[in-house]
Amino acid sequence: MRAAIFRNGNFVVDDIRDPTPSEGQVLVKSLCCGICGSDLHAAKHTLEFVDRSRRSGNRWALDPERDVVFGHEFCCEVVDHGPGTDKRLKLGTLVCSMPMTIAGNTVHGIGYSNDVAGGFAQYMPLAERLLLEVPNGLPAAHAALTEPIAVGWHAVQKARLTPDDVPLVIGCGPVGLAVIASLKVSGLHPIIAADFSPKRRVLAVEMGADIVVDPGEMSPYMSWHRAATPAGYGGSRYAQLFGFSPKLPPAVIFECVGVPGVIQQVIDGAPAGARVVIVGVCMQADQFEPFFGIVKQLNLQFVLGYTGEEFAASLDHIAEGRIDATPLITGYVGLGGVKGAFAELANPEQHAKVMVEPWS
Amino acid sequence: MRAAIFRNGNFVVDDIRDPTPSEGQVLVKSLCCGICGSDLHAAKHTLEFVDRSRRSGNRWALDPERDVVFGHEFCCEVVDHGPGTDKRLKLGTLVCSMPMTIAGNTVHGIGYSNDVAGGFAQYMPLAERLLLEVPNGLPAAHAALTEPIAVGWHAVQKARLTPDDVPLVIGCGPVGLAVIASLKVSGLHPIIAADFSPKRRVLAVEMGADIVVDPGEMSPYMSWHRAATPAGYGGSRYAQLFGFSPKLPPAVIFECVGVPGVIQQVIDGAPAGARVVIVGVCMQADQFEPFFGIVKQLNLQFVLGYTGEEFAASLDHIAEGRIDATPLITGYVGLGGVKGAFAELANPEQHAKVMVEPWS
Repeated sequence: MRAAIFRNGNFVVDDIRDPTPSEGQVLVKSLCCGICGSDLHAAKHTLEFVDRSRRSGNRWALDPERDVVFGHEFCCEVVDHGPGTDKRLKLGTLVCSMPMTIAGNTVHGIGYSNDVAGGFAQYMPLAERLLLEVPNGLPAAHAALTEPIAVGWHAVQKARLTPDDVPLVIGCGPVGLAVIASLKVSGLHPIIAADFSPKRRVLAVEMGADIVVDPGEMSPYMSWHRAATPAGYGGSRYAQLFGFSPKLPPAVIFECVGVPGVIQQVIDGAPAGARVVIVGVCMQADQFEPFFGIVKQLNLQFVLGYTGEEFAASLDHIAEGRIDATPLITGYVGLGGVKGAFAELANPEQHAKVMVEPWS
Repeated sequence: MRAAIFRNGNFVVDDIRDPTPSEGQVLVKSLCCGICGSDLHAAKHTLEFVDRSRRSGNRWALDPERDVVFGHEFCCEVVDHGPGTDKRLKLGTLVCSMPMTIAGNTVHGIGYSNDVAGGFAQYMPLAERLLLEVPNGLPAAHAALTEPIAVGWHAVQKARLTPDDVPLVIGCGPVGLAVIASLKVSGLHPIIAADFSPKRRVLAVEMGADIVVDPGEMSPYMSWHRAATPAGYGGSRYAQLFGFSPKLPPAVIFECVGVPGVIQQVIDGAPAGARVVIVGVCMQADQFEPFFGIVKQLNLQFVLGYTGEEFAASLDHIAEGRIDATPLITGYVGLGGVKGAFAELANPEQHAKVMVEPWS
């Protein structure tokens, strides 16, 4: 089969051996697979990515000396049933799966494995028991957004939302946009979102943000403060005595940037008592000043990935039209276009999500 | 009146003007007042303390060029009622108060103020409406522990405890010991506590720890893991597949050290999904690696101080015997002994809590 292979720090399209489904596995064709920010990071800072991954106890950490085929945001078509399968999904069925497969007693991650090719290859051996049928005739490209939407949906589930919360999303890349779409499903308003990029602010509105702010023009925290202050609020005696207003609603801030320094910016800007959900994946060591988190009694919830239930719920939100994530898709490429897409994705004005179609 | 004054970086005992109670204030004699770790920090790293305090928006930040009388963990005796008071507490009544007073429309912090002397002076002007009567004939030294116990009680309230939690307390100084005492009241067991100091481990047991560990001999996290693993647990098929045990109870870790590097140690050691309550007050900039918090989906709750309700509950716990905090008291000094006590408190083998008695 053909695959876009990451080899010695570069992308090449080459033939690799077709996978053979083992016990409990189903052979699928990868129809459409998104390029994730983590893929960009793994390609650009491979040694750092591998080092962090190993030190975090990830048994699936990739060997940068060997070939790897990325791709973990995929929608596929069932083309063969392996041994010991129930064959509950007919050939031709469109499916999604969390990016892992099971071979015997071993779980393999998909997307950063030297042993199992990801969605930038034409075929994959998926675990039958992890497959979700794509409902409602949803096109493959829409269904392939299940994985990035699940990241945002999970972050919102971990935020312990209350009806009074006023959310602020810092960074409107694919992760921030998935958070915004998930907040919209949760029914919270207003949703405030900040990004330096005009194109991403437009996308933020399309995904459900009520107020967008350019941090170059106005502090996102000031914008939050204005939006959160109840109309006609004139200050109470208590507020006068203590010099602050106890009437503001709870702030819940989603950090969706993931580069050093941003967590301290959030700590500096957040109102007292805020809950901060750290969704951006910062791979580098970082500096912060705990004292300011202490004085404000902030809560920092680090999150990663999603549960199986959250993944299934995300596919359902897309299929039922509660989340229309298609504005995220800013381009399609075949395997030969993967290398160029990785380069172009550095520019937030040009792209949000590029989909790879291994059969086009 | 006599007071132990912090003047130009040194302690001197000198006469200062007696306070005059203003509208709504009651004049009290300071009977007993504990020395807090924050006092040590303010005396040793004054400029840093002032800088952090100012940058955090504290309007009460002290001017290091002017005299200041520390002391915010006090028990007092009512000796005069100012104008406009209800006189609801008779002269001679023992009282506690949160360390602040109200003069007209202004709230003054007590303990780090250039304008209002703290508990290391003989008299203070307290706000009548903030006074709590000391019940049950409790001695002044016991009642003066209300404030440090309230810090631990607040931390435990903010931890969102569930009955399944297994708590781990890192650091058994007065803050860690207050957390242990509060966990004991909450009924959670086993309580695991770690400190390098043998004396503090003994105190931890006296305050309610079930298991104590010397981090020089064994990782506190390993100790937690052993204590938290259900008896007879032999691993499930799920655990074998994914290489970890999903059966461990939730970990709640109290960071009660407050020096740079400890938060990252906790991030490195904590089991996945742990809730971390940051009770230690780290005044310096710190380094950490967000990635490892992300991979483990940790929750970091920074806490400070207590509410009025929590302060009152703490006095009640002491008065009703649910918390016996007297093992914390390792010495008593008069005003002339304050300087020496500040020096001696650097040694954890010698002291935990030293009480200042301005009238002795």
